[in-house]
Amino acid sequence: MTHPLADGWFTEIFDQQGSAFSLKVTAHLEQVTSEFQTIDMYDTETFGKLMVIDGCTMVSSRENFVYHEMMAHVPLFSHPNPKRVAIIGGGDCGTLREVLKHPSVEVAYQIDIDEQVTRMAEKYFPELCESNADPRAQILFADGIDWIKQREAGSLDVIIIDSTDPVGPAEGLFAVDFYQDCMRALDQQGVVVQQSESPLYHSDSIIKKIHTDMASAGASTSHTFPFPQVIYPSGWWSCTLASKGGDATVFRIEDAASKSFRTQYYNAEIHAAALALPEFMKRALQLD
Amino acid sequence: MTHPLADGWFTEIFDQQGSAFSLKVTAHLEQVTSEFQTIDMYDTETFGKLMVIDGCTMVSSRENFVYHEMMAHVPLFSHPNPKRVAIIGGGDCGTLREVLKHPSVEVAYQIDIDEQVTRMAEKYFPELCESNADPRAQILFADGIDWIKQREAGSLDVIIIDSTDPVGPAEGLFAVDFYQDCMRALDQQGVVVQQSESPLYHSDSIIKKIHTDMASAGASTSHTFPFPQVIYPSGWWSCTLASKGGDATVFRIEDAASKSFRTQYYNAEIHAAALALPEFMKRALQLD
Repeated sequence: MTHPLADGWFTEIFDQQGSAFSLKVTAHLEQVTSEFQTIDMYDTETFGKLMVIDGCTMVSSRENFVYHEMMAHVPLFSHPNPKRVAIIGGGDCGTLREVLKHPSVEVAYQIDIDEQVTRMAEKYFPELCESNADPRAQILFADGIDWIKQREAGSLDVIIIDSTDPVGPAEGLFAVDFYQDCMRALDQQGVVVQQSESPLYHSDSIIKKIHTDMASAGASTSHTFPFPQVIYPSGWWSCTLASKGGDATVFRIEDAASKSFRTQYYNAEIHAAALALPEFMKRALQLD
Repeated sequence: MTHPLADGWFTEIFDQQGSAFSLKVTAHLEQVTSEFQTIDMYDTETFGKLMVIDGCTMVSSRENFVYHEMMAHVPLFSHPNPKRVAIIGGGDCGTLREVLKHPSVEVAYQIDIDEQVTRMAEKYFPELCESNADPRAQILFADGIDWIKQREAGSLDVIIIDSTDPVGPAEGLFAVDFYQDCMRALDQQGVVVQQSESPLYHSDSIIKKIHTDMASAGASTSHTFPFPQVIYPSGWWSCTLASKGGDATVFRIEDAASKSFRTQYYNAEIHAAALALPEFMKRALQLD
């Protein structure tokens, strides 16, 4: 018997948790193998274009707004006056587009190790790349770990670690050494945010470790913000914000409420709401 | 080539949205076909037991707590003094267990049309049935629509519509006639909550219709509360609360913060947080 998902579906199996998510695809548009990874582009029946890296879903046209808006607006509204922003990873340019919606931003660096991700995004997600020509945008293809190490101390306001999972090329981005370099590069009021995997699957492992590592690296406080992420394992995702000298739970709520730009997910109430943690997460992170 | 999910996985295809979710199963424990539907029980590798009704995932041991706690504690803390509660559907008894954690509750009726769901829950989810012997619990197997119609006016404080999707046996539970009967059965301060499908998939269809229908049925206000629901389509779910004479966004926040019982997901901050709606939902529901 043929399996019902045999033809016309892309499936990501998340083996360590025994779950899988599939999208119905109408075409396999392109496959590129770069120096770092294999990128597949699909057209789907209901989610628009889909980018897959090394077999893991990365971005779809339909739902990427939740992730990109949370990764950009949570840290930028958590900083009193964000001018200098660095995005480590983020090659699809969606986070960059959101960052550049903030009028205070003077320069936004995007440092992805793999130029092919950006080339594929330009081709298949032009809407995510619509701010790439903004004069404030600096799109670099380099090792983000080295790049951060070379920054002058106190020269950045916000660092956004928009990485793949902590295996393969992104492994070094989930490490105390890297966080120390981030803290050094940040201004005293600076914040760093890291995509931090699934609340259900990773609260007492990856998420807990990010908090411990951020504290070891010198962060004064850190907080995890859950949000839905339909195409990622468990459909539930998070980012973890660490503040160098401030409070990671404080944000410019009035500025967020009167923001000058349009969003699809983020607003001031959503930011405040994402500060609330379920009971099991509080216990896993030993916050109660 | 054999499909990677061919053996050892249960897959629910949500065809109308071109997505699917799968869990790795270690055993197909039992199949029962009742007068109303077919119930399958599986053992999974990482989600414990799994109940599937007519091919749709219903409950797993690992993540049912989010749904059951939101369906019970959101309406009960939204009522000033909930004493008389009716659960329409809810045959797995998980919502009933959460309702009975509230000391104010004097009687909780559970009216599921299909006794086999409860029999399977007793066998495979004993933890969800641990309060079934509570003297306040009235477990009935009957048509919830008829049962509500026969209630005396003003005789219930909270009605929880813990139903399957709006197709098949549950179709009549997503209808203005039924909501009118609910409003009649409720006390003036009463509230009714309905599981209301996926924010991503159903904001401008099912969820919007529930608000319109609740208003037509005489509700003074209604509000949708999103929450994660890992095994349901899109991994993101919601419930919609309507208040007969009060404000669906007001709840006993201090009582929730000092609740006498343990939860895994719900707490006072989570309740407040679930009041926040993403921008796209506000637009779909025309709240802005």
